[in-house]
Amino acid sequence: MKLTGKAARAGAENGPAILLFAPQLGENVGQVARAMLNFGLADLRLVRPRFGWPNAKAVAAAAGAHAVLNRMRIFPGLAEAAEDLHHLFATTARPRELEKPVMTAEAAAAEARRLVGEGRRVGFLFGPERSGLSNAELALADAIVTIPLNPAFSSLNLAQAVLICAYEWFEAGDRTPPRREAAGEPPATKAELAGFLAFLVEELDRSGFFRSPTRRRSLVRAIEVMFERRRPTRAELNLLWGIVKQLGRRGGTRNL
Amino acid sequence: MKLTGKAARAGAENGPAILLFAPQLGENVGQVARAMLNFGLADLRLVRPRFGWPNAKAVAAAAGAHAVLNRMRIFPGLAEAAEDLHHLFATTARPRELEKPVMTAEAAAAEARRLVGEGRRVGFLFGPERSGLSNAELALADAIVTIPLNPAFSSLNLAQAVLICAYEWFEAGDRTPPRREAAGEPPATKAELAGFLAFLVEELDRSGFFRSPTRRRSLVRAIEVMFERRRPTRAELNLLWGIVKQLGRRGGTRNL
Repeated sequence: MKLTGKAARAGAENGPAILLFAPQLGENVGQVARAMLNFGLADLRLVRPRFGWPNAKAVAAAAGAHAVLNRMRIFPGLAEAAEDLHHLFATTARPRELEKPVMTAEAAAAEARRLVGEGRRVGFLFGPERSGLSNAELALADAIVTIPLNPAFSSLNLAQAVLICAYEWFEAGDRTPPRREAAGEPPATKAELAGFLAFLVEELDRSGFFRSPTRRRSLVRAIEVMFERRRPTRAELNLLWGIVKQLGRRGGTRNL
Repeated sequence: MKLTGKAARAGAENGPAILLFAPQLGENVGQVARAMLNFGLADLRLVRPRFGWPNAKAVAAAAGAHAVLNRMRIFPGLAEAAEDLHHLFATTARPRELEKPVMTAEAAAAEARRLVGEGRRVGFLFGPERSGLSNAELALADAIVTIPLNPAFSSLNLAQAVLICAYEWFEAGDRTPPRREAAGEPPATKAELAGFLAFLVEELDRSGFFRSPTRRRSLVRAIEVMFERRRPTRAELNLLWGIVKQLGRRGGTRNL
Protein backbone atom coordinates (compact mmCIF):
# COMPACT_ATOMS: atom_id res chain seq x y z
CA MET A 1 0.00 0.00 0.00
CA LYS A 2 1.19 3.46 -0.84
CA LEU A 3 0.21 6.12 1.65
CA THR A 4 0.04 9.70 0.52
CA GLY A 5 0.31 13.12 2.02
CA LYS A 6 0.49 13.57 5.74
CA ALA A 7 0.42 9.85 6.59
CA ALA A 8 3.37 9.18 4.32
CA ARG A 9 5.30 12.13 5.73
CA ALA A 10 4.58 10.78 9.21
CA GLY A 11 6.54 7.66 8.26
CA ALA A 12 3.48 5.41 8.44
CA GLU A 13 4.83 3.02 5.82
CA ASN A 14 7.25 1.66 8.41
CA GLY A 15 4.57 1.82 11.07
CA PRO A 16 4.15 -0.91 13.67
CA ALA A 17 2.77 -4.32 12.77
CA ILE A 18 -0.45 -5.28 14.56
CA LEU A 19 -0.36 -8.88 15.79
CA LEU A 20 -3.60 -10.57 16.86
CA PHE A 21 -3.09 -13.70 18.91
CA ALA A 22 -5.81 -16.33 18.39
CA PRO A 23 -8.61 -13.91 17.45
CA GLN A 24 -12.05 -15.50 17.76
CA LEU A 25 -14.23 -13.56 15.31
CA GLY A 26 -13.63 -12.60 11.69
CA GLU A 27 -15.77 -9.51 12.21
CA ASN A 28 -13.32 -8.19 14.79
CA VAL A 29 -10.41 -8.67 12.42
CA GLY A 30 -12.27 -6.58 9.84
CA GLN A 31 -12.86 -3.84 12.39
CA VAL A 32 -9.19 -3.97 13.36
CA ALA A 33 -8.20 -3.53 9.69
CA ARG A 34 -10.47 -0.50 9.44
CA ALA A 35 -9.14 0.99 12.69
CA MET A 36 -5.55 0.46 11.51
CA LEU A 37 -5.91 2.03 8.08
CA ASN A 38 -7.59 5.13 9.52
CA PHE A 39 -4.31 5.78 11.26
CA GLY A 40 -2.03 4.69 8.45
CA LEU A 41 -1.12 1.18 9.66
CA ALA A 42 -1.23 -1.66 7.13
CA ASP A 43 0.78 -4.63 8.47
CA LEU A 44 -1.71 -7.03 10.11
CA ARG A 45 -0.61 -10.48 11.30
CA LEU A 46 -2.83 -13.19 12.78
CA VAL A 47 -1.55 -16.01 14.94
CA ARG A 48 -3.77 -19.11 14.88
CA PRO A 49 -7.11 -17.41 14.20
CA ARG A 50 -10.10 -19.47 15.35
CA PHE A 51 -12.00 -18.96 12.08
CA GLY A 52 -11.37 -19.81 8.45
CA TRP A 53 -9.81 -17.47 5.91
CA PRO A 54 -10.93 -15.80 3.69
CA ASN A 55 -13.77 -14.64 5.89
CA ALA A 56 -16.79 -12.76 4.56
CA LYS A 57 -17.57 -11.12 7.91
CA ALA A 58 -14.05 -9.74 8.15
CA VAL A 59 -14.28 -8.28 4.67
CA ALA A 60 -17.65 -6.66 5.42
CA ALA A 61 -16.48 -5.21 8.73
CA ALA A 62 -13.30 -3.80 7.15
CA ALA A 63 -15.48 -1.19 5.41
CA GLY A 64 -13.09 -0.83 2.52
CA ALA A 65 -9.79 -1.33 4.31
CA HIS A 66 -8.82 -3.90 1.69
CA ALA A 67 -5.23 -2.69 1.62
CA VAL A 68 -4.83 -4.18 5.09
CA LEU A 69 -6.68 -7.48 4.54
CA ASN A 70 -4.96 -8.13 1.21
CA ARG A 71 -1.49 -8.10 2.72
CA MET A 72 -2.52 -9.70 6.01
CA ARG A 73 -0.49 -12.79 6.96
CA ILE A 74 -1.40 -15.80 9.11
CA PHE A 75 1.22 -17.55 11.28
CA PRO A 76 1.26 -20.84 13.19
CA GLY A 77 2.86 -19.28 16.27
CA LEU A 78 3.78 -16.00 17.88
CA ALA A 79 7.52 -16.59 17.46
CA GLU A 80 7.04 -16.87 13.68
CA ALA A 81 4.76 -13.83 13.53
CA ALA A 82 7.28 -11.70 15.42
CA GLU A 83 10.51 -13.07 13.96
CA ASP A 84 11.48 -9.97 11.95
CA LEU A 85 10.56 -7.52 14.74
CA HIS A 86 13.05 -5.80 17.01
CA HIS A 87 10.58 -4.65 19.64
CA LEU A 88 7.21 -6.03 20.71
CA PHE A 89 4.67 -4.16 22.82
CA ALA A 90 2.00 -6.45 24.32
CA THR A 91 -1.34 -5.03 25.40
CA THR A 92 -3.17 -6.27 28.44
CA ALA A 93 -6.03 -5.03 30.57
CA ARG A 94 -4.47 -6.46 33.72
CA PRO A 95 -0.73 -5.91 33.90
CA ARG A 96 0.49 -8.73 36.12
CA GLU A 97 3.72 -8.72 38.03
CA LEU A 98 5.98 -9.22 35.07
CA GLU A 99 9.56 -8.13 34.89
CA LYS A 100 8.71 -5.68 32.09
CA PRO A 101 8.10 -1.98 31.92
CA VAL A 102 4.38 -1.07 31.84
CA MET A 103 3.41 1.87 29.62
CA THR A 104 0.34 3.86 28.62
CA ALA A 105 -0.68 3.70 24.95
CA GLU A 106 0.55 7.27 24.53
CA ALA A 107 3.99 6.55 25.98
CA ALA A 108 4.27 3.34 23.96
CA ALA A 109 3.40 5.24 20.77
CA ALA A 110 6.12 7.79 21.48
CA GLU A 111 8.63 5.01 22.07
CA ALA A 112 7.48 3.20 18.91
CA ARG A 113 8.06 6.42 16.91
CA ARG A 114 11.54 6.72 18.36
CA LEU A 115 12.38 3.08 17.57
CA VAL A 116 10.97 3.26 14.03
CA GLY A 117 12.96 6.46 13.54
CA GLU A 118 16.08 4.45 14.37
CA GLY A 119 15.15 1.86 11.76
CA ARG A 120 13.75 -0.77 14.15
CA ARG A 121 10.71 -2.86 13.29
CA VAL A 122 8.03 -2.67 15.96
CA GLY A 123 4.87 -4.64 16.69
CA PHE A 124 1.85 -4.30 18.96
CA LEU A 125 0.39 -7.60 20.18
CA PHE A 126 -3.24 -8.08 21.19
CA GLY A 127 -4.75 -11.16 22.82
CA PRO A 128 -7.96 -13.10 22.15
CA GLU A 129 -11.21 -11.21 22.68
CA ARG A 130 -12.37 -13.10 25.73
CA SER A 131 -9.23 -13.99 27.63
CA GLY A 132 -6.47 -11.60 26.58
CA LEU A 133 -2.82 -12.61 26.43
CA SER A 134 -1.46 -15.26 28.78
CA ASN A 135 1.91 -15.04 30.51
CA ALA A 136 3.45 -17.27 27.84
CA GLU A 137 2.80 -14.65 25.16
CA LEU A 138 3.57 -11.69 27.43
CA ALA A 139 6.98 -13.23 28.10
CA LEU A 140 7.93 -12.56 24.47
CA ALA A 141 7.18 -8.83 24.78
CA ASP A 142 9.66 -6.06 25.54
CA ALA A 143 7.07 -3.89 27.24
CA ILE A 144 3.46 -4.07 28.40
CA VAL A 145 0.89 -1.52 27.22
CA THR A 146 -2.21 -0.80 29.26
CA ILE A 147 -4.90 1.68 28.32
CA PRO A 148 -6.14 3.53 31.42
CA LEU A 149 -9.90 2.90 31.80
CA ASN A 150 -12.76 3.66 34.15
CA PRO A 151 -12.11 1.12 36.92
CA ALA A 152 -15.87 0.73 37.39
CA PHE A 153 -16.43 -0.27 33.73
CA SER A 154 -13.50 -1.60 31.74
CA SER A 155 -14.90 -3.17 28.61
CA LEU A 156 -12.79 -2.20 25.63
CA ASN A 157 -13.16 -4.64 22.75
CA LEU A 158 -10.33 -5.81 20.51
CA ALA A 159 -10.91 -3.31 17.69
CA GLN A 160 -11.28 -0.45 20.18
CA ALA A 161 -7.97 -1.31 21.82
CA VAL A 162 -6.27 -1.44 18.42
CA LEU A 163 -7.98 1.84 17.46
CA ILE A 164 -6.53 3.64 20.46
CA CYS A 165 -3.00 2.30 19.95
CA ALA A 166 -3.15 3.14 16.22
CA TYR A 167 -4.55 6.60 17.01
CA GLU A 168 -1.76 7.32 19.47
CA TRP A 169 0.82 6.13 16.92
CA PHE A 170 -0.61 8.50 14.31
CA GLU A 171 -0.94 11.36 16.78
CA ALA A 172 2.69 10.96 17.88
CA GLY A 173 3.81 11.70 14.32
CA ASP A 174 1.06 14.06 13.23
CA ARG A 175 1.76 17.74 12.85
CA THR A 176 -1.80 19.08 12.89
CA PRO A 177 -1.69 22.19 15.06
CA PRO A 178 -3.62 21.46 18.29
CA ARG A 179 -5.70 24.57 17.74
CA ARG A 180 -6.21 26.84 14.77
CA GLU A 181 -8.04 30.06 15.42
CA ALA A 182 -11.00 30.93 13.23
CA ALA A 183 -9.93 32.36 9.92
CA GLY A 184 -11.66 35.51 8.76
CA GLU A 185 -11.35 39.22 9.16
CA PRO A 186 -9.05 40.69 11.79
CA PRO A 187 -10.65 42.76 14.54
CA ALA A 188 -11.27 46.45 13.90
CA THR A 189 -8.55 48.85 15.00
CA LYS A 190 -8.60 50.54 18.40
CA ALA A 191 -9.59 53.80 16.73
CA GLU A 192 -12.49 52.19 14.85
CA LEU A 193 -13.78 50.62 18.06
CA ALA A 194 -13.34 53.89 20.00
CA GLY A 195 -15.29 55.73 17.28
CA PHE A 196 -18.17 53.31 17.54
CA LEU A 197 -18.20 53.39 21.35
CA ALA A 198 -18.28 57.21 21.34
CA PHE A 199 -21.26 57.08 18.97
CA LEU A 200 -23.02 54.46 21.12
CA VAL A 201 -22.53 56.46 24.31
CA GLU A 202 -23.78 59.62 22.58
CA GLU A 203 -26.93 57.80 21.45
CA LEU A 204 -27.42 56.39 24.96
CA ASP A 205 -26.94 59.90 26.42
CA ARG A 206 -29.60 61.17 24.02
CA SER A 207 -32.03 58.44 25.04
CA GLY A 208 -31.58 59.08 28.76
CA PHE A 209 -30.23 55.55 29.36
CA PHE A 210 -27.70 56.50 32.04
CA ARG A 211 -29.98 58.41 34.41
CA SER A 212 -27.15 59.66 36.72
CA PRO A 213 -23.46 60.65 36.28
CA THR A 214 -22.32 57.91 38.71
CA ARG A 215 -24.33 55.27 36.89
CA ARG A 216 -23.05 56.67 33.59
CA ARG A 217 -19.41 56.28 34.63
CA SER A 218 -19.73 52.62 35.65
CA LEU A 219 -21.95 51.67 32.71
CA VAL A 220 -19.65 53.29 30.14
CA ARG A 221 -16.78 51.36 31.68
CA ALA A 222 -18.78 48.09 31.50
CA ILE A 223 -19.61 48.75 27.84
CA GLU A 224 -15.96 49.44 27.02
CA VAL A 225 -14.81 46.25 28.75
CA MET A 226 -17.49 44.21 26.95
CA PHE A 227 -16.40 45.42 23.51
CA GLU A 228 -12.66 45.44 24.15
CA ARG A 229 -12.84 41.80 25.12
CA ARG A 230 -14.79 40.73 22.05
CA ARG A 231 -12.83 42.75 19.51
CA PRO A 232 -15.52 43.01 16.76
CA THR A 233 -14.37 43.14 13.14
CA ARG A 234 -14.83 46.27 11.05
CA ALA A 235 -17.84 44.68 9.30
CA GLU A 236 -19.40 43.83 12.65
CA LEU A 237 -18.80 47.39 13.88
CA ASN A 238 -20.58 48.70 10.79
CA LEU A 239 -23.49 46.35 11.52
CA LEU A 240 -23.64 47.50 15.14
CA TRP A 241 -23.42 51.13 14.03
CA GLY A 242 -26.47 50.56 11.81
CA ILE A 243 -28.40 48.86 14.61
CA VAL A 244 -27.69 51.64 17.12
CA LYS A 245 -28.53 54.36 14.59
CA GLN A 246 -31.83 52.71 13.72
CA LEU A 247 -32.82 52.02 17.34
CA GLY A 248 -31.81 55.56 18.29
CA ARG A 249 -33.99 56.95 15.49
CA ARG A 250 -37.02 54.90 16.60
CA GLY A 251 -36.33 55.79 20.23
CA GLY A 252 -36.14 59.43 19.25
CA THR A 253 -39.42 59.19 17.36
CA ARG A 254 -41.14 57.52 20.30
CA ASN A 255 -39.83 60.18 22.68
CA LEU A 256 -41.18 63.04 20.59
CA MET B 1 -24.07 6.58 38.27
CA LYS B 2 -21.43 6.62 40.92
CA LEU B 3 -17.89 6.36 39.67
CA THR B 4 -15.23 5.05 41.95
CA GLY B 5 -11.50 5.31 42.35
CA LYS B 6 -9.43 6.93 39.67
CA ALA B 7 -12.35 7.91 37.45
CA ALA B 8 -14.06 9.73 40.29
CA ARG B 9 -10.84 11.46 41.28
CA ALA B 10 -10.45 12.52 37.66
CA GLY B 11 -13.72 14.47 38.02
CA ALA B 12 -15.57 12.26 35.55
CA GLU B 13 -18.94 12.83 37.24
CA ASN B 14 -19.03 16.31 35.75
CA GLY B 15 -17.59 15.04 32.50
CA PRO B 16 -18.81 16.27 29.13
CA ALA B 17 -22.21 15.33 27.77
CA ILE B 18 -22.15 13.41 24.49
CA LEU B 19 -24.79 14.71 22.05
CA LEU B 20 -25.71 12.59 19.03
CA PHE B 21 -27.55 14.52 16.33
CA ALA B 22 -30.05 12.39 14.36
CA PRO B 23 -28.27 9.05 14.83
CA GLN B 24 -29.43 6.43 12.35
CA LEU B 25 -28.77 3.10 14.06
CA GLY B 26 -29.62 1.93 17.56
CA GLU B 27 -26.59 -0.34 17.49
CA ASN B 28 -24.28 2.66 17.14
CA VAL B 29 -25.89 4.33 20.14
CA GLY B 30 -25.20 1.19 22.19
CA GLN B 31 -21.55 1.21 21.06
CA VAL B 32 -21.32 4.90 21.94
CA ALA B 33 -22.64 4.16 25.46
CA ARG B 34 -20.01 1.47 25.87
CA ALA B 35 -17.23 3.72 24.58
CA MET B 36 -18.34 6.51 26.94
CA LEU B 37 -18.51 4.45 30.11
CA ASN B 38 -15.07 2.96 29.50
CA PHE B 39 -13.77 6.48 29.94
CA GLY B 40 -16.10 7.55 32.72
CA LEU B 41 -18.67 9.52 30.71
CA ALA B 42 -22.34 8.91 31.45
CA ASP B 43 -24.43 11.83 30.08
CA LEU B 44 -25.72 10.76 26.65
CA ARG B 45 -28.26 12.90 24.76
CA LEU B 46 -29.93 12.07 21.46
CA VAL B 47 -31.46 14.65 19.16
CA ARG B 48 -34.18 13.25 16.87
CA PRO B 49 -32.91 9.67 16.60
CA ARG B 50 -34.11 7.90 13.43
CA PHE B 51 -35.11 4.77 15.34
CA GLY B 52 -37.58 3.95 18.11
CA TRP B 53 -36.71 3.84 21.78
CA PRO B 54 -36.23 1.59 23.73
CA ASN B 55 -34.10 -0.22 21.18
CA ALA B 56 -32.97 -3.84 21.61
CA LYS B 57 -29.94 -3.44 19.33
CA ALA B 58 -28.71 -0.47 21.34
CA VAL B 59 -29.01 -2.43 24.57
CA ALA B 60 -27.15 -5.41 23.11
CA ALA B 61 -24.35 -3.26 21.67
CA ALA B 62 -23.94 -1.38 24.96
CA ALA B 63 -22.36 -4.55 26.42
CA GLY B 64 -23.44 -3.70 29.95
CA ALA B 65 -23.13 0.09 29.85
CA HIS B 66 -26.65 0.33 31.29
CA ALA B 67 -25.70 3.27 33.50
CA VAL B 68 -25.43 5.36 30.32
CA LEU B 69 -28.56 4.10 28.53
CA ASN B 70 -30.71 4.36 31.66
CA ARG B 71 -30.08 8.07 32.08
CA MET B 72 -29.95 8.84 28.35
CA ARG B 73 -32.31 11.62 27.24
CA ILE B 74 -33.96 12.30 23.88
CA PHE B 75 -34.58 15.86 22.65
CA PRO B 76 -36.62 17.34 19.80
CA GLY B 77 -33.86 19.75 18.78
CA LEU B 78 -30.23 20.62 19.32
CA ALA B 79 -31.05 23.85 21.14
CA GLU B 80 -33.02 21.89 23.74
CA ALA B 81 -30.33 19.23 24.07
CA ALA B 82 -27.65 21.86 24.66
CA GLU B 83 -29.63 24.36 26.72
CA ASP B 84 -27.82 23.78 30.04
CA LEU B 85 -24.35 23.68 28.47
CA HIS B 86 -21.84 26.51 28.55
CA HIS B 87 -19.54 25.21 25.87
CA LEU B 88 -20.19 22.93 22.89
CA PHE B 89 -17.49 21.19 20.85
CA ALA B 90 -18.75 19.91 17.50
CA THR B 91 -16.92 17.12 15.71
CA THR B 92 -16.58 17.01 11.97
CA ALA B 93 -14.42 15.12 9.49
CA ARG B 94 -14.27 18.09 7.14
CA PRO B 95 -13.81 21.39 8.95
CA ARG B 96 -15.31 23.94 6.59
CA GLU B 97 -14.51 27.60 6.58
CA LEU B 98 -16.38 28.45 9.72
CA GLU B 99 -15.59 31.32 11.98
CA LYS B 100 -14.68 28.96 14.79
CA PRO B 101 -11.45 27.62 16.20
CA VAL B 102 -10.59 24.12 14.96
CA MET B 103 -8.98 21.77 17.48
CA THR B 104 -7.60 18.25 17.69
CA ALA B 105 -9.40 15.84 20.03
CA GLU B 106 -6.46 16.07 22.43
CA ALA B 107 -6.51 19.87 22.57
CA ALA B 108 -10.31 19.86 22.93
CA ALA B 109 -10.06 17.41 25.83
CA ALA B 110 -7.54 19.62 27.59
CA GLU B 111 -9.81 22.65 27.12
CA ALA B 112 -12.83 20.65 28.30
CA ARG B 113 -10.92 19.70 31.47
CA ARG B 114 -10.08 23.34 32.07
CA LEU B 115 -13.69 24.46 31.55
CA VAL B 116 -15.12 21.70 33.75
CA GLY B 117 -12.56 22.65 36.39
CA GLU B 118 -14.05 26.15 36.33
CA GLY B 119 -17.54 24.71 36.85
CA ARG B 120 -18.71 24.97 33.23
CA ARG B 121 -20.89 22.33 31.63
CA VAL B 122 -19.40 21.02 28.41
CA GLY B 123 -20.74 18.90 25.54
CA PHE B 124 -19.32 17.11 22.51
CA LEU B 125 -21.64 16.98 19.50
CA PHE B 126 -21.51 14.26 16.83
CA GLY B 127 -23.45 14.20 13.57
CA PRO B 128 -25.40 11.44 11.80
CA GLU B 129 -23.39 8.40 10.68
CA ARG B 130 -23.65 9.04 6.97
CA SER B 131 -23.63 12.79 6.56
CA GLY B 132 -22.06 14.32 9.65
CA LEU B 133 -23.12 17.69 11.02
CA SER B 134 -24.42 20.40 8.71
CA ASN B 135 -23.49 24.06 8.99
CA ALA B 136 -26.77 24.73 10.86
CA GLU B 137 -25.65 22.53 13.76
CA LEU B 138 -22.01 23.59 13.57
CA ALA B 139 -23.15 27.20 13.98
CA LEU B 140 -24.26 26.38 17.54
CA ALA B 141 -20.80 25.16 18.50
CA ASP B 142 -18.05 27.12 20.22
CA ALA B 143 -15.28 25.14 18.60
CA ILE B 144 -14.80 22.44 15.98
CA VAL B 145 -13.03 19.18 16.78
CA THR B 146 -11.38 17.15 14.06
CA ILE B 147 -9.54 13.88 14.61
CA PRO B 148 -6.44 13.71 12.40
CA LEU B 149 -6.73 10.68 10.10
CA ASN B 150 -4.88 9.00 7.25
CA PRO B 151 -5.86 11.22 4.30
CA ALA B 152 -5.93 8.14 2.06
CA PHE B 153 -8.50 6.31 4.23
CA SER B 154 -10.66 8.33 6.59
CA SER B 155 -13.46 6.10 7.74
CA LEU B 156 -14.02 6.53 11.44
CA ASN B 157 -17.49 5.44 12.51
CA LEU B 158 -19.63 7.24 15.07
CA ALA B 159 -18.70 5.06 18.05
CA GLN B 160 -15.00 5.22 17.15
CA ALA B 161 -15.10 9.02 17.02
CA VAL B 162 -16.83 9.13 20.42
CA LEU B 163 -14.32 6.58 21.75
CA ILE B 164 -11.37 8.78 20.83
CA CYS B 165 -12.88 11.95 22.29
CA ALA B 166 -13.84 10.09 25.49
CA TYR B 167 -10.39 8.51 25.67
CA GLU B 168 -8.69 11.89 25.34
CA TRP B 169 -10.98 13.34 28.03
CA PHE B 170 -10.04 10.52 30.41
CA GLU B 171 -6.35 10.72 29.52
CA ALA B 172 -6.31 14.46 30.16
CA GLY B 173 -7.31 13.83 33.78
CA ASP B 174 -5.65 10.49 34.35
CA ARG B 175 -2.57 10.23 36.52
CA THR B 176 -1.29 6.83 35.41
CA PRO B 177 2.47 7.23 35.07
CA PRO B 178 3.37 7.01 31.34
CA ARG B 179 5.94 4.34 32.09
CA ARG B 180 6.60 2.21 35.14
CA GLU B 181 9.81 0.24 35.14
CA ALA B 182 9.66 -3.45 35.83
CA ALA B 183 9.41 -4.20 39.50
CA GLY B 184 11.80 -6.76 40.92
CA GLU B 185 15.30 -6.90 42.27
CA PRO B 186 17.64 -3.96 41.91
CA PRO B 187 20.80 -4.52 39.87
CA ALA B 188 23.87 -5.88 41.62
CA THR B 189 26.33 -3.34 43.01
CA LYS B 190 29.35 -2.14 41.02
CA ALA B 191 31.60 -4.24 43.25
CA GLU B 192 29.54 -7.39 42.74
CA LEU B 193 29.61 -6.89 38.98
CA ALA B 194 33.36 -6.15 39.02
CA GLY B 195 33.94 -9.34 41.04
CA PHE B 196 32.08 -11.42 38.51
CA LEU B 197 33.83 -9.80 35.54
CA ALA B 198 37.24 -10.45 37.10
CA PHE B 199 36.29 -14.10 37.56
CA LEU B 200 35.01 -14.34 33.98
CA VAL B 201 38.19 -12.81 32.51
CA GLU B 202 40.32 -15.14 34.63
CA GLU B 203 38.43 -18.16 33.31
CA LEU B 204 38.74 -16.88 29.76
CA ASP B 205 42.47 -16.32 30.29
CA ARG B 206 42.76 -19.88 31.51
CA SER B 207 40.89 -21.21 28.46
CA GLY B 208 43.06 -19.29 25.99
CA PHE B 209 40.06 -17.32 24.70
CA PHE B 210 41.93 -14.05 24.12
CA ARG B 211 44.82 -15.31 22.00
CA SER B 212 46.82 -11.99 22.00
CA PRO B 213 47.25 -9.06 24.42
CA THR B 214 45.75 -6.59 21.89
CA ARG B 215 42.73 -8.77 21.33
CA ARG B 216 42.45 -9.27 25.07
CA ARG B 217 42.31 -5.53 25.75
CA SER B 218 39.51 -4.84 23.27
CA LEU B 219 37.50 -7.95 24.18
CA VAL B 220 37.68 -7.27 27.91
CA ARG B 221 36.41 -3.76 27.22
CA ALA B 222 33.55 -5.13 25.09
CA ILE B 223 32.59 -7.58 27.86
CA GLU B 224 32.61 -4.79 30.46
CA VAL B 225 30.42 -2.54 28.29
CA MET B 226 27.97 -5.39 27.62
CA PHE B 227 27.49 -6.12 31.34
CA GLU B 228 27.54 -2.50 32.53
CA ARG B 229 24.71 -1.71 30.16
CA ARG B 230 22.54 -4.63 31.25
CA ARG B 231 23.12 -4.31 34.99
CA PRO B 232 22.30 -7.89 36.03
CA THR B 233 20.77 -8.49 39.45
CA ARG B 234 22.70 -10.26 42.18
CA ALA B 235 20.71 -13.46 41.55
CA GLU B 236 21.50 -13.27 37.85
CA LEU B 237 25.20 -12.74 38.63
CA ASN B 238 25.14 -15.85 40.80
CA LEU B 239 23.54 -17.76 37.94
CA LEU B 240 26.18 -16.49 35.51
CA TRP B 241 28.94 -17.33 37.99
CA GLY B 242 27.69 -20.91 38.12
CA ILE B 243 27.49 -21.15 34.32
CA VAL B 244 31.04 -19.83 33.82
CA LYS B 245 32.42 -22.07 36.55
CA GLN B 246 30.78 -25.15 35.04
CA LEU B 247 31.82 -24.36 31.47
CA GLY B 248 35.38 -23.56 32.64
CA ARG B 249 35.54 -26.91 34.43
CA ARG B 250 34.40 -28.83 31.33
CA GLY B 251 36.71 -26.76 29.12
CA GLY B 252 39.57 -27.51 31.51
CA THR B 253 38.73 -31.20 31.42
CA ARG B 254 38.65 -31.23 27.65
CA ASN B 255 41.98 -29.45 27.45
CA LEU B 256 43.74 -31.97 29.66
